[in-house]
Amino acid sequence: MTKQQASPEQILAAMTFEEKLSQLQIVWKPKDEDSQHLARTGAGALFWPADAAKTNELQRIAVQESPHGIPLLIALDIVHGQFTIFPTPLAQAASFDPDVAEVDARVSAAEARATGVNWTFSPMIDVSRDPRWGRVVEGFGEDPYLTGVLGAAKIRGYQGEDLSSTTSIAACAKHFVGYSAAEGGRDYNTTDVSIQRLRNVYLEPFLAAVKNNVASVMASFNALSGVPMHANKQLLTDVLKEEWKHQGIVVADAGGVGELVEHGVAEDISDAGRLALSAGLDVEMGGALFNGEMPIIREGDVDPGRIDDAVLRVLKIKQDLGLFNNPYVDENAAPVTAGEEQREKAREAAARCTVLLKNDGQVLPLKKQAGRVLVVGPYADSKDHLGAWVQYFATPAGKSIVESLGDALPDAEITTLRGADFYTSDPARQEEAARAAKDADLVIVAVGEPSALSGEASSRSDITLPGDQTALIHRIAETGTPFAVVLMTGRPLILSDWIDQCPAVLLAWHLGTEAGPAIADVLTGTANPGGKLPMSFPRSVGQIPVYYNHDSTGRPARHGGTLTSEQPDVGLTGPNNTDDFYKSKYLDLDLGPLFDFGFGLSYSTFRVEGKADGPATVSLSSLKEGGSVGFTASVSNASDVGGDEVVQLYITDVRASITQPVRRLRRFNRVHVPAGQSRNIAFSLYADDLGFWTNKEAGEFVLEPGEFRVTVGDGSTFQAMAFTVTDN
Amino acid sequence: MTKQQASPEQILAAMTFEEKLSQLQIVWKPKDEDSQHLARTGAGALFWPADAAKTNELQRIAVQESPHGIPLLIALDIVHGQFTIFPTPLAQAASFDPDVAEVDARVSAAEARATGVNWTFSPMIDVSRDPRWGRVVEGFGEDPYLTGVLGAAKIRGYQGEDLSSTTSIAACAKHFVGYSAAEGGRDYNTTDVSIQRLRNVYLEPFLAAVKNNVASVMASFNALSGVPMHANKQLLTDVLKEEWKHQGIVVADAGGVGELVEHGVAEDISDAGRLALSAGLDVEMGGALFNGEMPIIREGDVDPGRIDDAVLRVLKIKQDLGLFNNPYVDENAAPVTAGEEQREKAREAAARCTVLLKNDGQVLPLKKQAGRVLVVGPYADSKDHLGAWVQYFATPAGKSIVESLGDALPDAEITTLRGADFYTSDPARQEEAARAAKDADLVIVAVGEPSALSGEASSRSDITLPGDQTALIHRIAETGTPFAVVLMTGRPLILSDWIDQCPAVLLAWHLGTEAGPAIADVLTGTANPGGKLPMSFPRSVGQIPVYYNHDSTGRPARHGGTLTSEQPDVGLTGPNNTDDFYKSKYLDLDLGPLFDFGFGLSYSTFRVEGKADGPATVSLSSLKEGGSVGFTASVSNASDVGGDEVVQLYITDVRASITQPVRRLRRFNRVHVPAGQSRNIAFSLYADDLGFWTNKEAGEFVLEPGEFRVTVGDGSTFQAMAFTVTDN
Repeated sequence: MTKQQASPEQILAAMTFEEKLSQLQIVWKPKDEDSQHLARTGAGALFWPADAAKTNELQRIAVQESPHGIPLLIALDIVHGQFTIFPTPLAQAASFDPDVAEVDARVSAAEARATGVNWTFSPMIDVSRDPRWGRVVEGFGEDPYLTGVLGAAKIRGYQGEDLSSTTSIAACAKHFVGYSAAEGGRDYNTTDVSIQRLRNVYLEPFLAAVKNNVASVMASFNALSGVPMHANKQLLTDVLKEEWKHQGIVVADAGGVGELVEHGVAEDISDAGRLALSAGLDVEMGGALFNGEMPIIREGDVDPGRIDDAVLRVLKIKQDLGLFNNPYVDENAAPVTAGEEQREKAREAAARCTVLLKNDGQVLPLKKQAGRVLVVGPYADSKDHLGAWVQYFATPAGKSIVESLGDALPDAEITTLRGADFYTSDPARQEEAARAAKDADLVIVAVGEPSALSGEASSRSDITLPGDQTALIHRIAETGTPFAVVLMTGRPLILSDWIDQCPAVLLAWHLGTEAGPAIADVLTGTANPGGKLPMSFPRSVGQIPVYYNHDSTGRPARHGGTLTSEQPDVGLTGPNNTDDFYKSKYLDLDLGPLFDFGFGLSYSTFRVEGKADGPATVSLSSLKEGGSVGFTASVSNASDVGGDEVVQLYITDVRASITQPVRRLRRFNRVHVPAGQSRNIAFSLYADDLGFWTNKEAGEFVLEPGEFRVTVGDGSTFQAMAFTVTDN
Repeated sequence: MTKQQASPEQILAAMTFEEKLSQLQIVWKPKDEDSQHLARTGAGALFWPADAAKTNELQRIAVQESPHGIPLLIALDIVHGQFTIFPTPLAQAASFDPDVAEVDARVSAAEARATGVNWTFSPMIDVSRDPRWGRVVEGFGEDPYLTGVLGAAKIRGYQGEDLSSTTSIAACAKHFVGYSAAEGGRDYNTTDVSIQRLRNVYLEPFLAAVKNNVASVMASFNALSGVPMHANKQLLTDVLKEEWKHQGIVVADAGGVGELVEHGVAEDISDAGRLALSAGLDVEMGGALFNGEMPIIREGDVDPGRIDDAVLRVLKIKQDLGLFNNPYVDENAAPVTAGEEQREKAREAAARCTVLLKNDGQVLPLKKQAGRVLVVGPYADSKDHLGAWVQYFATPAGKSIVESLGDALPDAEITTLRGADFYTSDPARQEEAARAAKDADLVIVAVGEPSALSGEASSRSDITLPGDQTALIHRIAETGTPFAVVLMTGRPLILSDWIDQCPAVLLAWHLGTEAGPAIADVLTGTANPGGKLPMSFPRSVGQIPVYYNHDSTGRPARHGGTLTSEQPDVGLTGPNNTDDFYKSKYLDLDLGPLFDFGFGLSYSTFRVEGKADGPATVSLSSLKEGGSVGFTASVSNASDVGGDEVVQLYITDVRASITQPVRRLRRFNRVHVPAGQSRNIAFSLYADDLGFWTNKEAGEFVLEPGEFRVTVGDGSTFQAMAFTVTDN
């Protein structure tokens, strides 16, 4: 540092009202001259112009030509990779491995910072219970704890130990809050939740993010219980900034401030700006606050202290990022595509995200001498593996499944046919595929939902396989040739219309740049699938929402419904209608989802056993003083192939002042167990793990004495234990 | 009155704790001797033993042999008729005619009281937005205002002007509250709502019920935002009894107290009883409190004043019902089946509930000289028209559709074939029906959902036509013979898979004892359909929930989605993603429901025009002093057939402190307009119609100044007006 820099407070003191507003927005302008003009007038943040040299030029203008020489935040939506594309976040959640998320974020941050980007709008930590919603692909699934752990890992990965490092960028926890609870799974739709659900489900991951020092939090598009989040003072200020002490920025989503008018709470854009800033929003996205000519709000419309607080938050992030010291990057060293080392990490991560849903008769893994292998389906030779939220400069998938399988099985005779399509139907091509299948020793059916059908604004009311893919599976099944389905998707799909006809299913999500080789690794046993479902797979779209950690009801069902004309006649059988007919279920469905949260198979055979480490009671006071209860799980691998098991620990608060989830994930650990060996894993539970939030006022966290059930298992079978928190 | 009766307070003063508990429960015992034993020991209420003489004997025992000679409440679930079955409540809501509900309730009350019944558990006024939920059939649909108006009419009908009348019974508003918001439409499932939604949507009809002096309110099975309603003091006591001054009973649903254990908030049945009574429940249903041997709670477990308050409420209802004067009925005059006069009322009501959904080419009404008419479908000769919640002693539908059509069209040549089934599939019978259709001049396809598939514990995940009925419609359509579908159902169904192939659809719900003749009346033009939909009909099950009065979002869509691989590339088009792609919708559906709330056609041709009666501004202060704004709708009938139109008036609060519904029904009026004539209808809106509830504390009602849009119309087309509430 050669010259003494002004402190953020000193810079602030010298700024005019308009200059402050310019700092409080992030703008995207497709034309270089427009961006440069904004930089010159003192804009606070711009989107990445997709070029390191252009970024340097913007920073140069900002530092040398703008009124106060403040460097720019340069933002880019890097959700699961900038050049090197990792599996989608939902796929990463399936790894049940925080390292997968952290490695993605480390690679992303290094690529991004080297190109001039210093801010990403990731991770998305919206707990997602409705697979119709297209953005489930961007998050970590239906569990608040898993979402919080993976989100924190991603934040650590992006931000590193020091934001000013040349391999770190500022993260953004989004969308604050309740966005995923959109009614009907229709993106941007209204959400309505009680205080306790807001706290116990939707806020939990954000609290984890703030505890991990996330640099920014993004307000969500939705109105929450009537109050649009861009104007929600109770949550943006009272909870996020005051109760949780979030020190970073609260940024708007694109156009979200202006949309307060459509929401019906603001009269016009000026009113919207006033409401948003007053509520605690720091940075508007879009450029509505001040276009360089006339600010939409006048000095005094918003408490000046609030404006100054917002500006200081922006300046301090820039300071933390080291931009005042050096806003430039080495243009010649800036990457423009995925590097070999990064691709290798992406390939390993991709294999870890696969979930083996079914494997009757050990169809998988394929033998090295697999003979005649037919690969059919629209995903057979597709390279649409990157998934939602990647941009045109992302490094595409190098190889398709059929190509990668050819590399992995050089001795096999591999042929391919499309057989079906995502958007159209043609029985002739299904027939052609079936004829070829009869001549094959084994068929791989590569089907799924293309990337374009998940992500933002991509809600689907029908989440079965699109096009004529289901028909193709049925035609292949009819041939009698052994086959496995490889399923690419951005969301849980409805598999009920074909799963029973299919011996083996490998869920491969959208796995990124290295999807093809990674899928081949798993199909051939080079990698052993160890992922688990981060969201339940419903039996039908009419069963949504279905999620594992639902609350207890007064009438839990023991078995599913039957569609029949026979009903109990209450006139004869009386009103004591507590027979199993009068239970919570559908007449036309079995109970629960088709595949549950936490479920996943392996090529290995594991057994998980749990035991308590100490006495079966623990006092409330000892927990409140930091004490814990401990459990140990032992995982043994009885098979002759090493593999990973995800040991999962759930609790149930048997009796409480408000209804509790039937079980809640509180710990998990993905562990590698070599063939024939076993591993022990210790878990400790603390007060924060056992308590819950009530509806009292803005929410009150309580830990109530009483019995707790603990279940430990692999997602399919569980061992039950119990302990009691005593009232002393 | 020959002897001086003790007052309720005097009776109470003489009672032991156990005797009080006995009064605080309603019990059902199938064996006469068990019921009589309960009456002898001082039970407060029993279910109707299905016989007037047996009821008299129970009352005699209670009055002559029980400790304090207190007569019994005798309850029966009379939901839309005891003997004479009227249309289901959802069908009644389609009439948009409070008189239909009131007449049903008057007939029901007279039949019931004459047989010894003095208490019914009706009306259900749960606002229902999810047609998967089987109990939508028991309520009045998706609109809080319509539900409140119809519920109040039903209460007035049951209770009359004097509960002690021999034609009056005590009503029960149920289920308090939020039961219909069960997640996934699965009966008994958890509900979670914010304060403002609870107040604006779910509580509004209950407030109307209390204002109409409903004698009792039933607690609902669900947990509401974590707190099971049977233990929800905030709502049972603070809101219902204290804020609203409900003077009557709060009764449990069957077994609902004991289910607090399953809910996880009570340790055992004693704890459950203590929680429920303390929360404000007055009467347990099932008999758990005191079985004559050992009370589940001990004296002192619950505030004695609370117990006494509950007993007094029970005794006062008995007093209001005149039971202390005369608990007996004239056994010889007690009806055992529907009378002629009652049937005539039921027939007229039934016709008024029909909704004409489609009538291309004026297929309907049938001409008197209709020629060869084929009636097909499993409902052609079915008498399953009573609908959910009727009992074995109900008077069955006398005639099927095909029989009634024969009566109405004596000159037509009417034949019938089943063609399809509710539960099975058989292409041969569809084929047979299609062959017959080719030889017919017109086909009536009578299809639907049988009664057994709606009602309590009858949630469906798939709400298309069950069995092979859709296939039958397609086969009939292929013949080219003109046809009309008559649709019987307990809920909105998905019609998308056949509606485009079908020229005419008459929605006939489950219309009760006189369904057949009433449907024939409408099909032949003797009655002109004038009903409107009380619930939206979704395009697909994956669109649920879809309801007209949804809140404004920040990104309303202008057109539906398209399932395509082409998506905007945000890297190129930037984050200013407010193009129509980034709007709230599904990729695979058009916007909105298939048929909207309030929609319905007629054989007449109506035109509705609205105008404001006064100036376009009204001051806040004048509204608060009881002032109003007035509008007049003029309805003209340009056709040569008289008919009914339902004029509907909606408001939109353009800008408010919290997000508002896009529109809200505030007034409606079903008016008969003779051919070629017109009618004027005046509407006045008051402060209560214009304000809304916020989330503040337990909810705060506010009326905010600003612009209001008013739309008046027939459910299909609307005229927009506006007025402003000024801040003075």
